[in-house]
Formats: sequence, C-alpha cells, structure tokens
Amino acid sequence: MQSFSSEASFALLEKLRAERPLVHNITNYVAMTVSANVLLALGASPAMAHALEEQDDFAAFGSSLVVNIGTLSPPWIESMKRAAGLYAAAGKPWVLDPVGVGATTLRNETAADLLALRPTVLRGNAGEVLALAGFAGGVKGVDSTAGSDAALEAARAIAEQFGSVVAVTGETDFVIDGKRTVAIKGGHELMPLSTALGCSLSGVVGAFTAVAPAFEATVAALTVYAAAGRMAGNRLKGPGYLPAELCDALYALDESKLAANADAKQI
Amino acid sequence: MQSFSSEASFALLEKLRAERPLVHNITNYVAMTVSANVLLALGASPAMAHALEEQDDFAAFGSSLVVNIGTLSPPWIESMKRAAGLYAAAGKPWVLDPVGVGATTLRNETAADLLALRPTVLRGNAGEVLALAGFAGGVKGVDSTAGSDAALEAARAIAEQFGSVVAVTGETDFVIDGKRTVAIKGGHELMPLSTALGCSLSGVVGAFTAVAPAFEATVAALTVYAAAGRMAGNRLKGPGYLPAELCDALYALDESKLAANADAKQI
Amino acid sequence: MQSFSSEASFALLEKLRAERPLVHNITNYVAMTVSANVLLALGASPAMAHALEEQDDFAAFGSSLVVNIGTLSPPWIESMKRAAGLYAAAGKPWVLDPVGVGATTLRNETAADLLALRPTVLRGNAGEVLALAGFAGGVKGVDSTAGSDAALEAARAIAEQFGSVVAVTGETDFVIDGKRTVAIKGGHELMPLSTALGCSLSGVVGAFTAVAPAFEATVAALTVYAAAGRMAGNRLKGPGYLPAELCDALYALDESKLAANADAKQI
Repeated sequence: MQSFSSEASFALLEKLRAERPLVHNITNYVAMTVSANVLLALGASPAMAHALEEQDDFAAFGSSLVVNIGTLSPPWIESMKRAAGLYAAAGKPWVLDPVGVGATTLRNETAADLLALRPTVLRGNAGEVLALAGFAGGVKGVDSTAGSDAALEAARAIAEQFGSVVAVTGETDFVIDGKRTVAIKGGHELMPLSTALGCSLSGVVGAFTAVAPAFEATVAALTVYAAAGRMAGNRLKGPGYLPAELCDALYALDESKLAANADAKQI
Repeated sequence: MQSFSSEASFALLEKLRAERPLVHNITNYVAMTVSANVLLALGASPAMAHALEEQDDFAAFGSSLVVNIGTLSPPWIESMKRAAGLYAAAGKPWVLDPVGVGATTLRNETAADLLALRPTVLRGNAGEVLALAGFAGGVKGVDSTAGSDAALEAARAIAEQFGSVVAVTGETDFVIDGKRTVAIKGGHELMPLSTALGCSLSGVVGAFTAVAPAFEATVAALTVYAAAGRMAGNRLKGPGYLPAELCDALYALDESKLAANADAKQI
Repeated sequence: MQSFSSEASFALLEKLRAERPLVHNITNYVAMTVSANVLLALGASPAMAHALEEQDDFAAFGSSLVVNIGTLSPPWIESMKRAAGLYAAAGKPWVLDPVGVGATTLRNETAADLLALRPTVLRGNAGEVLALAGFAGGVKGVDSTAGSDAALEAARAIAEQFGSVVAVTGETDFVIDGKRTVAIKGGHELMPLSTALGCSLSGVVGAFTAVAPAFEATVAALTVYAAAGRMAGNRLKGPGYLPAELCDALYALDESKLAANADAKQI
C-alpha cells in the first residue's frame, strides 16, 4: 500500500519533471495536439513521428514510446510495429492504446499484432480490454458482453499472458499485473465529453514509464491524471475549456494538491 | 413555418442527446479535434476513420457520415467515395462539405464525384456552392461570379438535380430543397476567425440527420449552431476562446436559451 | 535602426490586415489547427494543402508558402519540394521551418534538400540552425556542439550561401542576413510549454513575407509575435490557455500595445 501513496506518485512526478523524458508518440490525428500539450504541461518532452524511415532514429534516443491506433492506416501500422519492436528490443518501455478495438477488423488485427509484441503497459477502457482479450488468440474465458468485473478478468488474463501491466480506465481506473490490482478514483464527469483525453492519458503513462517500473509508473500516471482531471473539471461548467484547464492543473500540481485529490488503493 | 420553430429544433436536439448517434467523419486534419469536441458537446458520439480498410465496418454501425475534402489526398478520396456509397446504399444519411472547391482541379473533380453520389445534405459557403454547381456537369445557368442570390439559385439547381438538401452558410444561412427555403440568422462575426467552425457545423448537420428527415435536421442543426455561436461570440472579445466557448454554449443549450437566440424563417 | 521600430512593424501589420494574404501551409499535423488560428487572428488567410496534385494550383494563387517538416513522410516531402520550387520560380516568398532537424536522417536529408531550394526565410531554434548548417554541404566551420554564438555564426553562413534571411528564435530571437543582425526580445517562459507555437511563428513569418521584403518582414513578424506572446503569457498562470490568449493578443494588437511590448534592436 505504501508504494501507491500520493507521496510516492508525487516523487515520481518530481523525477519526471527533473529528467524530462522524451516521449515518442505514434498517435492519432485527433489526439496529437492535445497529447503534446498535456505532456508539456506534465513536464515531459513529446515528439510525434510516424514515418517508417524515422523509427530507428527515434528509437535510439526516445525514452519511451506510445502507440495509439485511433486513426489507423496501413503505412502507420508498419511504423507502429517497427517502433514497438525496437523499443522492446532495447529494453525501453512502450505503451499500447488500442482505441476502438472491437470496431473494425483492421483495428482488431493491428491491436492483436501489437499486443503480441508485449507492450510494457496496455491502457484502454473496459470495452477495449474485453474486445482485445476476446480475439487475441490465447486469451480464454472472457465474455465480451459482460461488465467491468469481466474487464478486470480480461485484464488479468492479458497481464499474465503478455507480461504487460494493464490499465482499465473509466469512472474508476484499475491497474493490474499478474498479482496486484490498484483502484484509482478521481477525474470528472466532463472528461469523456472532451476528445482525446484518454489518448493523452496514455501519453502520460508513457512519460512515467520512462522514470519508474511499469506498475508503479502506471499507478502514478493515473493518480496524477485523475487528480488533475478532478481539479480541472471542478472549476468548469462545460467541457469546452477542459483541455486547457487540465494542462494548467498538471502544470501547477504540487504535493499538497495531489494529496488532497489522489485516491489510489490496492484491492 | 411551425416546423421550423425553435421548439421544433430543440425537440430534435433533445432526441439527438437521447439517441447519441455515432457520427462517422472523414474530415480534414485541421478540423478533426474541433469537430470531435463540438459533436461531443452537442451530445453525439464522433468517430474519425479514414482508412479504406475500415469503411465497410464503420458503415455497418455508423448512424451517419460526414465527408469533408479540406485536406485531400488520393487515398482519402478512395475512402470518401467508398464510404459515401455504402451509407447511400444502406439508406443512411451522409453530408458533403466541399471545402475549397473551386481552388484546385483535385478538389473540383473530387467534389463533383462525391456530389454524383447524391449526398443527403451538401453544406458549403456561397462560393463553394457556386463553384460546385458551375462544373458539376448538368447544372446549368449559374453565374459563378455572382453574389448570394446566384448561390441560392445554384443551391436550388443542385437540390433538384441531386436530390440533396443544400445549406448555403454565411452571415445568413439558407437551407434549400426543391421546394422550400429557410433563412437562419445568428452566429457571430468572430466565427470566421476561428478555424474549422464551418467544418464542425457540417459535423453537427451529420448528427441531426441521424435523428430526423434531412430538411428538418439541417434547419435544426443550423438553428442550434447559430444560436450557440451567437451566445459564445457575445461573451468574447477575440477569436481565441471561441471553440471552447462554443462547445460550452452547445453543452448548456436549453429550450429558453434556444428560443431567445434562434431565428429561422421560411422565405 | 529606424526601419525596425515598432512603428515600422505595426505599419506592416496594418498592411497585412488590409491585404489579407493567402498563406499556403504544408505543415505538421500537430501545428495545423494552432497555425491556422494564429494566422486568422493575425489577419491573414491560411490554407493547408499537402497533396502533390494540388501544389501547382495553390502555387498559382498563394501569396506565400510555409514548409514545416515536423511530421514528415515521403509523399509530403515530394509535395514540399514541388511547392518550394514553384513559389521560388514565381518569385514568391517561402519559409522553411526545419523542425527537429538533426534528429533523424530523413529530416536531415529533407531539410538539406529544401535549403538547397533557397528559402526566402529559414526559421529555427539554435540547435536546428546549427544542425542544418552542419550537414548542408558547403557550410563550413560550424561547431554543432557550441552555443548561441555558434548558432548566429551558422545562421550567417547559411544566409550568405543560400541568400536566405535566417531567424534563430529562442529566449532572444535573431534575424540575420548577410550584413545585418537584429535582436528581438519578448515572448514568455510559458511559450515553450505549449506545442506548435514555434511552428505558428513560422506561419506568421510567411504572412509578413507576403507584404514586405524578407528581412523587414521577418523582423516585423518576430516583433509582433514576441509582443503578443509576452502580453498573453503575462495574463496566465499556466500554459493551457496560451494558444487562445495569444490569438486574442494578436487580434487586439494596436500601435500603442505593440510600442509598449516591442523590443527589436540592430546589433
């Protein structure tokens, strides 16, 4: 329990701000600007590069990689696979955000191929985690029509089979590996009404994985983001200003604000 | 006249909020994030997907489609045509926004090809509607150097020939089919100074077409958007915050606010 | 000195607002929306078009071109080269923003190829200007590990060899041609924490080059942007609202505000 305190998460945030990791993103068009701004406000250094010809160069100096399949096309898929393989081979962390998996064959096949490359962290909502577990080959016993308990079961199965930390995010977030589950509360009901804030969270997870082991990093990322999201949402009456307010909340987050807004518990 | 009252438009907005239609967008890079946020604030569920490989899957569950040619390239054109054909074949509505038609041969040919697929609604400014009528084959008698009266004449010609509802938007908006013309006032002079708000309006039209017949849907979409735009613009001194303020105005729009700001009249 | 006064820069801003030049951008995905909004707030008319098939048409009526290599891929590189060649051949100004040059072979080769097409203005940070000078063929004697003095030396070498005005931007900006150097102060420490504001500045340079000779245009662009950035940043406590606030500052910039915030000196 001690290691998931707000103090522990804040210590990792301070480490991140000091080290300013370069987070290499291959992400969707809708999320690029928002993700870059969220990463800058957090204290990381974002780079967006999707060309196959640039993946080897970026993998050589990137601190971590975030792959997001929100607006796929075949040339990007090649780059995603190339980059994921390079980061994995170099022992560097990478995060998979399987946006919309379950919706199309192209997303299903791409997400399954990427999952087979064993992402350090998989982050998705309950439906995405369930869908991915449902057709990712060896993952058994998942009822894709079931609710959040089934999503946690699917997350555990993925974690065990692929060695990934799995973050299932929603009204309550869950971080799961083969043995542990941490539940994180926070955020705000306006967040789903502002596009790409889930994608940006995957970017934040990528930034934290560059400065800490995957499980602790993911818990810290979700704790920080849920706290900043709650603070930002509470200041607003609608979703329009939420990305800007969220960036300001991340930028100004200090230990006492995080302590007052963090809620992470091992369950 | 009764059917274009603010009460009628608000009833469709309430229906949209209840049904939360999935609006499938193949839109330009500049407009993607803004359009997604506008659709979320309105109460719809946006999806952005441009790969040819995903069009059949999305067309199977999308409620409506919005095709916007703002940042064209040949692979996207193939996807636009495929998607438009699929929605049309399924009897589902789709909206064409011919951004910048008249400026390049690629846009002219693409817009004409898409118009030939008979969009449910065509939305453009006066120049775009005139340009499109001018080279879209059989549309006759249009003087592309003429003013807004000529644009209405062009809109009527397109409506008759292709069976589309045509929305000509500007300081005053017009919704035209073969028989009726509705003029809608509102919006704000700051709106043309914030990018992609016209593109986002096409997204809003797409959302309304998923819950009502094309003419009534288009009138309601333009009425709601003009009212929210006027309210948002009146709160600001410059264009910087307009997208955020517009989203908040859409999110908070209720029957009395719409009644106080709506201005739609059959002419 | 007289010609770099705030009065001179404001006179060019007024000319720009009156002429409303069409600035054709081939820029990165992250910067597109922000750049378009900045250009609109400034008083220019932005167009984003990347397809090879559209370059000849746009080059025929565009007032100036901005090429930004932030999110490269081979098809876009072809369009960039085509467009740069067309604007150069027509005697129209074009601006090169070599984002991230030095990071990857693809960027290095692309930036060098584009520099060989002799941009009217090259705008980059010190590291980019140094990197570009380091491998752009005949530019000699540059120590790419050196600091800002070395960047100015590199800028002068590029200016002499390629006939470009070179803007090296950072905490202090410098505008250099073969003979003159102007130093411009302003901006705000929050600016590097909001993505694409450097890219947007390149857009602003492009707009000014459409209404004045390259050196005077670049000085005016940087003077106006630094003043607006300072005013915007001073109103804020974090980076979240900076793009919106910067647009409002540009939109409302008048002669007295510019005079109070401008700081450009020939050195």
